[in-house]
Amino acid sequence: MTTTFEQMWADLAPVGRSSRTGGYFRQPFTAADDEAQAWFLGECARRDLRVERDGFGNVVAWWDSGGQAGGPGLLTGSHLDSVLDGGAYDGPLGVVSALAAVDVLRDRGVVPDRPLGIGVFREEEGSRFPLACLGSRLATGTTSWDEAKGLRDRDGVAVADVMDGPQGDPGDDRAGSALLAGVGTFVELHVEQGRDLVDRGAAIGVATGIWPHGRYRFDFTGEPNHAGTTRMEDRHDPMLTYAMTVLAANKQARLSGQRATFGRVAVRPNGTNAVPAEVTAWLDARASSTVDLMALVAEVERMAVDRAGRDGTDVVVTPESVTAEVVLDVELGGRIAAAHGWPLVPTAAGHDAGILSSAGIPSAMLFVRNPTGISHSPQESASVADCLAGVEALADTLALLTSGGRP
Amino acid sequence: MTTTFEQMWADLAPVGRSSRTGGYFRQPFTAADDEAQAWFLGECARRDLRVERDGFGNVVAWWDSGGQAGGPGLLTGSHLDSVLDGGAYDGPLGVVSALAAVDVLRDRGVVPDRPLGIGVFREEEGSRFPLACLGSRLATGTTSWDEAKGLRDRDGVAVADVMDGPQGDPGDDRAGSALLAGVGTFVELHVEQGRDLVDRGAAIGVATGIWPHGRYRFDFTGEPNHAGTTRMEDRHDPMLTYAMTVLAANKQARLSGQRATFGRVAVRPNGTNAVPAEVTAWLDARASSTVDLMALVAEVERMAVDRAGRDGTDVVVTPESVTAEVVLDVELGGRIAAAHGWPLVPTAAGHDAGILSSAGIPSAMLFVRNPTGISHSPQESASVADCLAGVEALADTLALLTSGGRP
Repeated sequence: MTTTFEQMWADLAPVGRSSRTGGYFRQPFTAADDEAQAWFLGECARRDLRVERDGFGNVVAWWDSGGQAGGPGLLTGSHLDSVLDGGAYDGPLGVVSALAAVDVLRDRGVVPDRPLGIGVFREEEGSRFPLACLGSRLATGTTSWDEAKGLRDRDGVAVADVMDGPQGDPGDDRAGSALLAGVGTFVELHVEQGRDLVDRGAAIGVATGIWPHGRYRFDFTGEPNHAGTTRMEDRHDPMLTYAMTVLAANKQARLSGQRATFGRVAVRPNGTNAVPAEVTAWLDARASSTVDLMALVAEVERMAVDRAGRDGTDVVVTPESVTAEVVLDVELGGRIAAAHGWPLVPTAAGHDAGILSSAGIPSAMLFVRNPTGISHSPQESASVADCLAGVEALADTLALLTSGGRP
Repeated sequence: MTTTFEQMWADLAPVGRSSRTGGYFRQPFTAADDEAQAWFLGECARRDLRVERDGFGNVVAWWDSGGQAGGPGLLTGSHLDSVLDGGAYDGPLGVVSALAAVDVLRDRGVVPDRPLGIGVFREEEGSRFPLACLGSRLATGTTSWDEAKGLRDRDGVAVADVMDGPQGDPGDDRAGSALLAGVGTFVELHVEQGRDLVDRGAAIGVATGIWPHGRYRFDFTGEPNHAGTTRMEDRHDPMLTYAMTVLAANKQARLSGQRATFGRVAVRPNGTNAVPAEVTAWLDARASSTVDLMALVAEVERMAVDRAGRDGTDVVVTPESVTAEVVLDVELGGRIAAAHGWPLVPTAAGHDAGILSSAGIPSAMLFVRNPTGISHSPQESASVADCLAGVEALADTLALLTSGGRP
């Protein structure tokens, strides 16, 4: 028998999928994003959930069960957007599981004694604009609309520009904290992005916290010139400075047990027969503590500047976003984990739950086992059995937190 | 008094110029290319030159002087296209100087005793399609239409596709050797792309030959993954292999006195928070002999493969174009240089003159001094005095080679 989870998964699968790579391109404010949101709203309508939406396009769908004594709401959910050429699970697994968990609770006859909502936050990945978790940052007021509206994508299009028109109501009220005003607790289910659960032989785990994380733009500038006629010793080639910085960042992260990645680069003019004028690259850095993160980035910058001196180039480093360490709610996570003996695991990936937690909303995360640990890739995966275990785990957790709701 | 050279230079200056960088974007089959060609046809009409055009859009404008005894034609000219964000002189200087030289010859009352033509070859730079000198290759039959038509630009558009419609007559007759059938000699004037003439204190020089030159595509593939959660030791990151290869190519070229440049790169998916799946980069390599070029590229490839083994990535190297060494016509160049005591200089830059020479058309090149040596860059330059000296030098050379034309 096909479960509602499997049916929803099949319905959502083609949205924004590249036929070439099998990966997903669900960037915010694109046709794929609209389609994914429309799919979600359809599933909410089918379940008679009451949809609220803020100006940025974050959505919370409430289950008005009739059995509620009021009190602070319990929110679950995740996001539907993907990185460029991303996997199917990062984000959508939490949304589909939330909808399926509501079905499970209803089948069990559970009537929540507090408001229960499913949230979908927009642009969690920061794959379009240079600030991850933009939706939840705006919803919590962590980032103001004034700070957000000028952020630009690769084509120079600003957040404010894509927001004009039917997408939402322009104006300064987009820091839509009203959307989360009634939320007292957040539980996000997510595919694991590592192999802790594989190593432990567990299908489900509970997160303890999120590593601090920063994105830094490195602007390397040199002297554009002819690739054939310019003697090697006369060059000021920013590609060399960039290349050394890539290797230095990798080495430094390996030595310190942290993470440093240059996954994105733009070259000007990017011609085969020209020494470049400019190489712009983005460092993604994460470490087990904020102090370690700062030390890691400072060392990479020091090595870049040193090499620039030797190449006769310049390098300027600009932090585009830096997120401090997040310790998720210890009491909440402990209670959830203890109920089923699920292991507690840390993560180096950023999540909306981290933003809500830092904004004062007690938050917890459930992880579903990822057999390869691969994420942000078309090869990201989770078994159907583990996904269904995730739905049950989320339903159990929601039931636990809406205590006394059983008939 | 403004010379015709200066007037033409001013008219052509705005075509395809970026207001941001001051550099030129005159890629073939674009609006800027059309505009530059229209400018040239207008100048030809003003001088009553008879225009011939082949299917690819190469043009030769003949001066039917009436004094011709027939015999093999003498061709001058160059190209109007630019690299991405290129300079004003590389190409256009030869075309504008050719037109101005015809004016000088007419002012002097010279009546050439052989056909005298001005050629403009299309896509000399290979800035759009992956084969430099595509126009002169097709015109000489060095490259067949069958080989050329499937070449694709960065957006996947094939040569055959941009050629459809009013640009030319589709079909296999585009290897338009008819255009050059009457050409017995080619003299191309070009801005120097190095500092040999500065070092010698000479405004004008004559080229001896062109270094062999190759373009090689390096496809580095790895395993896309999450930039935060994937442990450094679990990665297969093709950006690392690329970075090491950039540094290896530079070092190898420095050690051997040759040239190696990675000026163009494309990353997939090119997201800040993802270890890339694929890095594609282009090596531009040049050496003083074909054997040295092969040795240089083989060593860079060996180092790339070695590093790929350590990174757990793959690298595949594909030559996209390799042009053998060109020795320009010794008798012709010697005769031109001797007439005025101009120095003989080599070059590592490719030119249409090299293609025509290899196709059996005796060819020579005049270089105009470049005060900084910078080329393929918005900073490329030549003084007005040197440009005007170039016009006189070209007129003198054309007069020399159309002997007996003086009244």
